[in-house]
Amino acid sequence: MTDQATQPASGHSMQPDDSPELRALYQGFKDNHLNPLWTQTGDLMPMHPNPAAVPHVWKWKVLLPLAEASGDLVPVGRGGERRAIGLANPGLGGNAYVSPTLWAAIQYLGPRETAPEHRHSQNAFRFVVEGEGVWTVVNGDPVRMSRGDLLLTPGWCFHGHHNDRDEPMAWIDGLDIPFGQQMDVGFFEFGSDRVTDYATPSVSRGERLWCHPGLRPLSALEETVASPIGAYRWEFTDRALTEQLRLEDEGHPTTVEQGHAAIRYVNPTTGGDVLPTIRCEFHRLREGCETSTRQDVGSTVFQVFEGTGSVLLGEEWKKIEKGDLFVVPSWVPWALKAETQFDLFRFSDAPIMERLGFMRSQTGAA
Amino acid sequence: MTDQATQPASGHSMQPDDSPELRALYQGFKDNHLNPLWTQTGDLMPMHPNPAAVPHVWKWKVLLPLAEASGDLVPVGRGGERRAIGLANPGLGGNAYVSPTLWAAIQYLGPRETAPEHRHSQNAFRFVVEGEGVWTVVNGDPVRMSRGDLLLTPGWCFHGHHNDRDEPMAWIDGLDIPFGQQMDVGFFEFGSDRVTDYATPSVSRGERLWCHPGLRPLSALEETVASPIGAYRWEFTDRALTEQLRLEDEGHPTTVEQGHAAIRYVNPTTGGDVLPTIRCEFHRLREGCETSTRQDVGSTVFQVFEGTGSVLLGEEWKKIEKGDLFVVPSWVPWALKAETQFDLFRFSDAPIMERLGFMRSQTGAA
Amino acid sequence: MTDQATQPASGHSMQPDDSPELRALYQGFKDNHLNPLWTQTGDLMPMHPNPAAVPHVWKWKVLLPLAEASGDLVPVGRGGERRAIGLANPGLGGNAYVSPTLWAAIQYLGPRETAPEHRHSQNAFRFVVEGEGVWTVVNGDPVRMSRGDLLLTPGWCFHGHHNDRDEPMAWIDGLDIPFGQQMDVGFFEFGSDRVTDYATPSVSRGERLWCHPGLRPLSALEETVASPIGAYRWEFTDRALTEQLRLEDEGHPTTVEQGHAAIRYVNPTTGGDVLPTIRCEFHRLREGCETSTRQDVGSTVFQVFEGTGSVLLGEEWKKIEKGDLFVVPSWVPWALKAETQFDLFRFSDAPIMERLGFMRSQTGAA
Amino acid sequence: MTDQATQPASGHSMQPDDSPELRALYQGFKDNHLNPLWTQTGDLMPMHPNPAAVPHVWKWKVLLPLAEASGDLVPVGRGGERRAIGLANPGLGGNAYVSPTLWAAIQYLGPRETAPEHRHSQNAFRFVVEGEGVWTVVNGDPVRMSRGDLLLTPGWCFHGHHNDRDEPMAWIDGLDIPFGQQMDVGFFEFGSDRVTDYATPSVSRGERLWCHPGLRPLSALEETVASPIGAYRWEFTDRALTEQLRLEDEGHPTTVEQGHAAIRYVNPTTGGDVLPTIRCEFHRLREGCETSTRQDVGSTVFQVFEGTGSVLLGEEWKKIEKGDLFVVPSWVPWALKAETQFDLFRFSDAPIMERLGFMRSQTGAA
Repeated sequence: MTDQATQPASGHSMQPDDSPELRALYQGFKDNHLNPLWTQTGDLMPMHPNPAAVPHVWKWKVLLPLAEASGDLVPVGRGGERRAIGLANPGLGGNAYVSPTLWAAIQYLGPRETAPEHRHSQNAFRFVVEGEGVWTVVNGDPVRMSRGDLLLTPGWCFHGHHNDRDEPMAWIDGLDIPFGQQMDVGFFEFGSDRVTDYATPSVSRGERLWCHPGLRPLSALEETVASPIGAYRWEFTDRALTEQLRLEDEGHPTTVEQGHAAIRYVNPTTGGDVLPTIRCEFHRLREGCETSTRQDVGSTVFQVFEGTGSVLLGEEWKKIEKGDLFVVPSWVPWALKAETQFDLFRFSDAPIMERLGFMRSQTGAA
Repeated sequence: MTDQATQPASGHSMQPDDSPELRALYQGFKDNHLNPLWTQTGDLMPMHPNPAAVPHVWKWKVLLPLAEASGDLVPVGRGGERRAIGLANPGLGGNAYVSPTLWAAIQYLGPRETAPEHRHSQNAFRFVVEGEGVWTVVNGDPVRMSRGDLLLTPGWCFHGHHNDRDEPMAWIDGLDIPFGQQMDVGFFEFGSDRVTDYATPSVSRGERLWCHPGLRPLSALEETVASPIGAYRWEFTDRALTEQLRLEDEGHPTTVEQGHAAIRYVNPTTGGDVLPTIRCEFHRLREGCETSTRQDVGSTVFQVFEGTGSVLLGEEWKKIEKGDLFVVPSWVPWALKAETQFDLFRFSDAPIMERLGFMRSQTGAA
Repeated sequence: MTDQATQPASGHSMQPDDSPELRALYQGFKDNHLNPLWTQTGDLMPMHPNPAAVPHVWKWKVLLPLAEASGDLVPVGRGGERRAIGLANPGLGGNAYVSPTLWAAIQYLGPRETAPEHRHSQNAFRFVVEGEGVWTVVNGDPVRMSRGDLLLTPGWCFHGHHNDRDEPMAWIDGLDIPFGQQMDVGFFEFGSDRVTDYATPSVSRGERLWCHPGLRPLSALEETVASPIGAYRWEFTDRALTEQLRLEDEGHPTTVEQGHAAIRYVNPTTGGDVLPTIRCEFHRLREGCETSTRQDVGSTVFQVFEGTGSVLLGEEWKKIEKGDLFVVPSWVPWALKAETQFDLFRFSDAPIMERLGFMRSQTGAA
Repeated sequence: MTDQATQPASGHSMQPDDSPELRALYQGFKDNHLNPLWTQTGDLMPMHPNPAAVPHVWKWKVLLPLAEASGDLVPVGRGGERRAIGLANPGLGGNAYVSPTLWAAIQYLGPRETAPEHRHSQNAFRFVVEGEGVWTVVNGDPVRMSRGDLLLTPGWCFHGHHNDRDEPMAWIDGLDIPFGQQMDVGFFEFGSDRVTDYATPSVSRGERLWCHPGLRPLSALEETVASPIGAYRWEFTDRALTEQLRLEDEGHPTTVEQGHAAIRYVNPTTGGDVLPTIRCEFHRLREGCETSTRQDVGSTVFQVFEGTGSVLLGEEWKKIEKGDLFVVPSWVPWALKAETQFDLFRFSDAPIMERLGFMRSQTGAA
């Protein structure tokens, strides 16, 4: 960000002249755990969001080999809990925070391995860019994980994972860990050292109960904080996007902008976001499509699911391809350009911003 | 209903003695459009809902031939608008009200006929107990009608129907006409004398945009008063009910009560009812299942979709079979018993009762 | 209303030719409790709301003497329950309905009389155009009734009234009795034959707990269906209206339209209407002010509290003065004109129309 | 917090054995901005909230003289914007954060001084523990500040302050600055270098429009994100608390617990919190009353308004008196004990925790 963001001071500052009395005053502040506003306004209250986090791209072809190497060197089990490698935003001091609110990691499970059960206040999802063979068991319900699927683990649900195959599998995890850590909201509880059910059904019980469009079981009429659907299957996502583009072809305005189809994953009990802190979406651009440039309050992460293209991050365009992840911090201008048909999974902290009244968006040149 | 319902007077009444002065007073009331409470309390404020409407069964094997005869004798067209024959509750003085809030009719469209377009404030749906070949065109979107489908026409949407086949077709319509007529809420507007689009797609545009479980188009994020889904297909309803019973078999409590599966059709933008005044559900009972006896404020109508069984209406059990319709007025005890697997479509005015704070329900012996 | 409202038929009707077969068909309908749409469309679905209810003015100087005469002739007590004289809309066949949804009555309590306790699903309020000396006891909380006060008795609250003075008192009651009766929603229960507490505090417990602007007791954080405030005092209403007009004088746009101040009575737990079915407002017009002409779906009743002026009802202006009541049925154009400062209490069924999606309004020439 | 909070590891850890390969892997992580979960689980996901922030008391008799000294040494004006001295939680590394979400400061304005106008996304309030003479001008509306008043400045409202007297005045400011800074949500804009209106009315326009209990202007029917009331006057707060204790004396359960009265300041358009991120309350304890011990997710700050008593913070009781401020970080047990009648103003980040689904509370021994 520019100096303008960090310097609200308009020139005629209220900084006092140095003097022994002033130094005594400042010492008094320090001794009594006080800190004056007038020495720090610009940092505390910038002219516009001025994130420490920076835009960054992580290449899948770098990530995946490192995850594979971890598979050889690092056991999975109680204590560390997960063989997950967090994306550490270069602007955030080495913490495994992809943004101030969000955690994004690549998780890797070797053949026949089990990641033990636990639960926590933090909300989680998994998204599978390639592979299959792992089941995540959420509150006792085994959920198949396959390419293109979004899997939910809302806060305080017990969950473990096991790999039913002889091949390893990697996927990405998204959580609100940084938010939870900074805001001191988290509880954690260990569960079974194994998963509670090693069955490998192709469809989970949650899907069988809830994944019928526009239909709701009469035995479950209460609104829930998070979606009761554990798995949003690629088959449905792909079909929804395909239909939007076909409808556009037929002359009906169902896309976000010309050539840009998109769905939001929602909680069927409310029509709102799947998790109280995390929004999940999937975007498809036709070959050649370039989106408008946007700025939004809050941070967002994308993973390329298929195709090649580029992303504008601030002022720089970067090439991205299958599996690549990138983060857009708050108010950083971004746009997408598709070389081929271009499919991207997206998640963000927009529910936090919207529920607390801080959301703003702007479209057009930055 | 019993005397108890209509006689709140506890014996020591406040009825005044007759006198010339009293008669003059009552004449004064009459002359000035006044009406004293003390002469009418019991009717105005019964001890519990004391509907004029009565429970009643209409047999499909009687209804359908009458509809067919209408097809021969009555043209369909502008003015009368629809060849629809309303179920007239025997307690409601000959009005075509199945209850004080609801309209239910059998509608019949001959080969190649068109019912012209119009729109009205009243909310409408159609349910198809048998047949196919008609498309209802809602705000320009042609929607196929087939056995087991629920089709919506929310208030103020233009709609017409056309039969694309050489066979006639009949279905039931449900609306909030009696509510609208008594509460003076209705607007009406004529549209095209033909339908605006004679295409016969198997899937409507609304379905293509909205019928992907848990997915919402990013171009349509606002809550809508009524569901944007025009067609709830039998395929999905049947699958949802089948899964509920299978899950019950596997030991998971997903049914309403033992052997009784049910879904509510919902608006995907809210998770709530499909129409602001009408609730739609589908119930499936296993062979031999008998539901508990319920009483609810508000009125409800069922149509048997498949199977045979009986219904308790007040104190009497009646045999019912495919296509039969029955109405349960407010607070009348009802239960269902299944001789075979027993499938029933249901609609009611429950949203009115719930949104206005009047809903009460009671389960158990009346 | 005009013919246009009742005749949607555009000329080329679908009425069938008479024939023996048709007569047999119609007999078949009748025998089987059926009623065809094509013989009744215009009545069932008018072009715009076409109420049977008519606009009407009841003069206070006629009402009050009749109420006083009732005081002499009619005992108050169990059975009739209340010495209340309902306004019977001339268009509604002699029923004590001021509109299809609303009941409005003048209630009269003689010196030292008690109206016994009962409760019912119907929502009620009282408004006092003149007098004092009666306490209404709502769920055991004695609430003083004085000129200009709005007193609430939400559905299913026990309530009785007693006159603590040697002078009689009259006031108006508003309820949703017609709605409840037509929609079959009502339960009723007798309570004490006396009121449960004859104390005569100037402020009720509900007011002491709730009537502090913008403050909510920490012991009562749940939303309630109806307002927990039992009494909305004239002192506050008058002050709010006075301030709106002063702010207008100072150049701030706080009135509804020039010279027209108004407040809505609200439920402090939601900011919404005081009762789930009834909206209450108070309007003040400066001398000489004439409002714009409005049409609204739903019906509304006004009582002149102070001043003189006139009301447009449909196409006719009528003079009105203190105590006069008038009803505006659905979609009838109305306006107000003030000869003096003109204060009016208003209630309506707008919550019903808004919650069920039927509200429409239009301002300007009818 | 105890070791238990920071050590989820149950003993059989997944830490890999050191090796050259592992060191290469870890270097690969570092080079590519990655950070593995298994080396940091305990910090990221503690067993229960394990705040870096610590409970702390700031004494008014220390704060006020430092503020007074600032008045002599530090000019107020554009650039630093406010002569505000932030409470810096000893656990939060010297930042002027009283907790991870909240800012609390003492602000000081000398005789006839003006703090210039600006606006920002951050939500703010002021609370006055003693003094008078300053007006805060919010979106052009001058709001008097006096002892016991709560004054609101919701996000993005222009505001400045001016002292109309020859005596200085101090008060406390509360904002969501730390939340905003960490979450990157803030915008800032300079306004007038002076305040836009130097009038000194005793009542603001917002109060004149909104502070009538249960009454809402018909010209302002939309829900607002923050309260439209700019000033919650001590007179009303005191009366509400007095009445709660009197009602308790009369046998009605209107207090939070025996001897403990409390109100929440609310937005009259919703009945909910005054600001989207900050809850404000006022608590009064009878002499001798001791509250139960509570733990809540999220942080809260209290200021003693009147009286003396003590506060349990974690495991230690501390004496507190008029003006003293203390912070309770997330999940730290706290209780209050009153030596005299004990009045405390409270604010917290509870709306953040509730709206995002993280709130938990526990009463009883820690």
